[in-house]
Amino acid sequence: MSTTPPFPRAHLATPALIVDLPAFERNVAAMAAWARGKRIALRPHAKTHKSGEIARRQIAAGAVGICCAKLGEAEALAAEGIEDILITSPVVPRQPVERLARLNERVERLAVVVDHPDNVDRLAAAVGDGRIDVLVDLDTGSHRTGVTSPEAAVSLAERIAANDALGYLGVQFYCGSLQHVPRFDDRQSALAERAAYLRTILQALSDAGLPARTVTGGGTGSFAIDAELGLLNELQAGSYIFMDRQYQECEPAALRFEQALSIDTRVISANTPGRVTIDAGLKAMATDGGAARVLAGADPGSAFLFMGDEHGMLVTPEGGADPRLDDLVTLLPPHCDPTVNLYDQYAICRDDLVIDTWPVSARGRSA
Amino acid sequence: MSTTPPFPRAHLATPALIVDLPAFERNVAAMAAWARGKRIALRPHAKTHKSGEIARRQIAAGAVGICCAKLGEAEALAAEGIEDILITSPVVPRQPVERLARLNERVERLAVVVDHPDNVDRLAAAVGDGRIDVLVDLDTGSHRTGVTSPEAAVSLAERIAANDALGYLGVQFYCGSLQHVPRFDDRQSALAERAAYLRTILQALSDAGLPARTVTGGGTGSFAIDAELGLLNELQAGSYIFMDRQYQECEPAALRFEQALSIDTRVISANTPGRVTIDAGLKAMATDGGAARVLAGADPGSAFLFMGDEHGMLVTPEGGADPRLDDLVTLLPPHCDPTVNLYDQYAICRDDLVIDTWPVSARGRSA
Repeated sequence: MSTTPPFPRAHLATPALIVDLPAFERNVAAMAAWARGKRIALRPHAKTHKSGEIARRQIAAGAVGICCAKLGEAEALAAEGIEDILITSPVVPRQPVERLARLNERVERLAVVVDHPDNVDRLAAAVGDGRIDVLVDLDTGSHRTGVTSPEAAVSLAERIAANDALGYLGVQFYCGSLQHVPRFDDRQSALAERAAYLRTILQALSDAGLPARTVTGGGTGSFAIDAELGLLNELQAGSYIFMDRQYQECEPAALRFEQALSIDTRVISANTPGRVTIDAGLKAMATDGGAARVLAGADPGSAFLFMGDEHGMLVTPEGGADPRLDDLVTLLPPHCDPTVNLYDQYAICRDDLVIDTWPVSARGRSA
Repeated sequence: MSTTPPFPRAHLATPALIVDLPAFERNVAAMAAWARGKRIALRPHAKTHKSGEIARRQIAAGAVGICCAKLGEAEALAAEGIEDILITSPVVPRQPVERLARLNERVERLAVVVDHPDNVDRLAAAVGDGRIDVLVDLDTGSHRTGVTSPEAAVSLAERIAANDALGYLGVQFYCGSLQHVPRFDDRQSALAERAAYLRTILQALSDAGLPARTVTGGGTGSFAIDAELGLLNELQAGSYIFMDRQYQECEPAALRFEQALSIDTRVISANTPGRVTIDAGLKAMATDGGAARVLAGADPGSAFLFMGDEHGMLVTPEGGADPRLDDLVTLLPPHCDPTVNLYDQYAICRDDLVIDTWPVSARGRSA
């Protein structure tokens, strides 16, 4: 795209990643207001958006800082001026730990989670006088990361607290696998069961003289339930800014966020009645979350099929009208985070005008 | 990565995209020699690699030029000095057609496929005196793109030939859906059936005084069969340079290519016996082709599971030994093209040394 905004959305080269700015702004404001009302610190997860501009807007609306999934993501957003970052995965290998120590000197406040005593020792050795905040990552049941027992949590907290290079902050408890449980009631009871386990750990830490000042976790599928359970004091939700098909299909909690992210595509072949081919395939959308849904430009009942790296097919439902060659079709992507990761920039739209572009600065920064 | 090659592969930040240079070079040479022997022009598909460096090496080995799936890809590789490009999807919307006309002025030889008369007219109007080569795209049965009958092929060829701005080259016949038919015999009989259809179209074009000078198509799963059938005179295979799990699992034809692309990852959590978590997830690997396979660093029988955006899990088979925290694990990705599209660079390795890095210049250039 060589054109400078503002320009008509119809002039975008497709596939294009679209942010509906008013809907996005309402989402940012709604979650900030909700967190304020509940006296929960909001630390949105930037792995959703990978954008310094969006992180700045979340912080301006009241977020205490942001989360990053990986060190590379944190480096990219720190380079854009973000000064308060929690890295939500353990940083383990030697070279990355050294990069982490350097990043810690550059930003105002950096924190990282740990789940192994060797990692605690390596962090401390690398950071030295720099001092970094550390949280004990708790395995919530999926066995992805985290310690797996109250005893291990206490032992790791003691190791952190005993080390002058490290500041013991508390715990991380992220129930990733429960975010997309379709029915609200089912999510609620699953989370209540996990909360009982968290309570045991928090008690054990208190008993050991190491109460968790920060209990961070939660997501777009669980934040209202987490607040109800009263255990978390810091919320990591990220996807609420955009919402995707997966989250849209979950029964809503207290707040209903608006769909603010979409993909503009065009029909590039239309030779077979009942189906057309669009210019968005495996390289334009996450493929782990099923099919995209039509938002505009084609029958909303159309089925989307991936047709290779660069193409998708829309199958018109019985009795519907096919889009024509060159028609613009807007899709709701199935899973926002890995979809955003495929693009270099967001086209920021108000109505049918592109009013800005924002770089996806931390795109591809998984290392 | 701030380090300058050469440096030990173990120092790479993970996940990292690895090219085994000797295996890659043998693949490039083997396909070039095979095509020379069969007197088939080799025009490798660059959507696999998206790299000017790799395109240059393919051309140096004897390829006539390259294929690109999208205009953006072609622009990126032209900017790296590639001068003979075929765009294998129709370029339809108005602004892209204008970009195509500008690209046509910059490179020595540009060709594009069409499948609709309106597209022919729009191309001709945009290109004007520039003259661009055009092929009729044939629908081989998947209804992705292409004309759907011999009559439509002849009619489109006539429209191209009648226009001074366009050079009629021939046809494209790419049987994408047949590339991964697991057994060689089954692929062979399916392709023979498609070849009979292609023969009908070629005859109809000849009868109309418009014989196809170029018949382009084929892929890594079909090239030997295509050659046997004697219909294609230009081969578009791309994945042979890397090979991925999907192609490795197809029964081989005349040539067996080597696996030359892998992903280095590290164990970042190891708290649960029987499983470890590595730093490669949905953002490190294509998810449309099933699971990655362990090549080194863990039991080769380990099962890989995606665990969200940034993590994967390796489940050790019964009786196997778990990798330890911080261990390096090398994976064979399931599907190479969309995996490459997630990275900004290749780490070019010989044995355990990174000897160069090559940018994935056309990464994300789907528009």
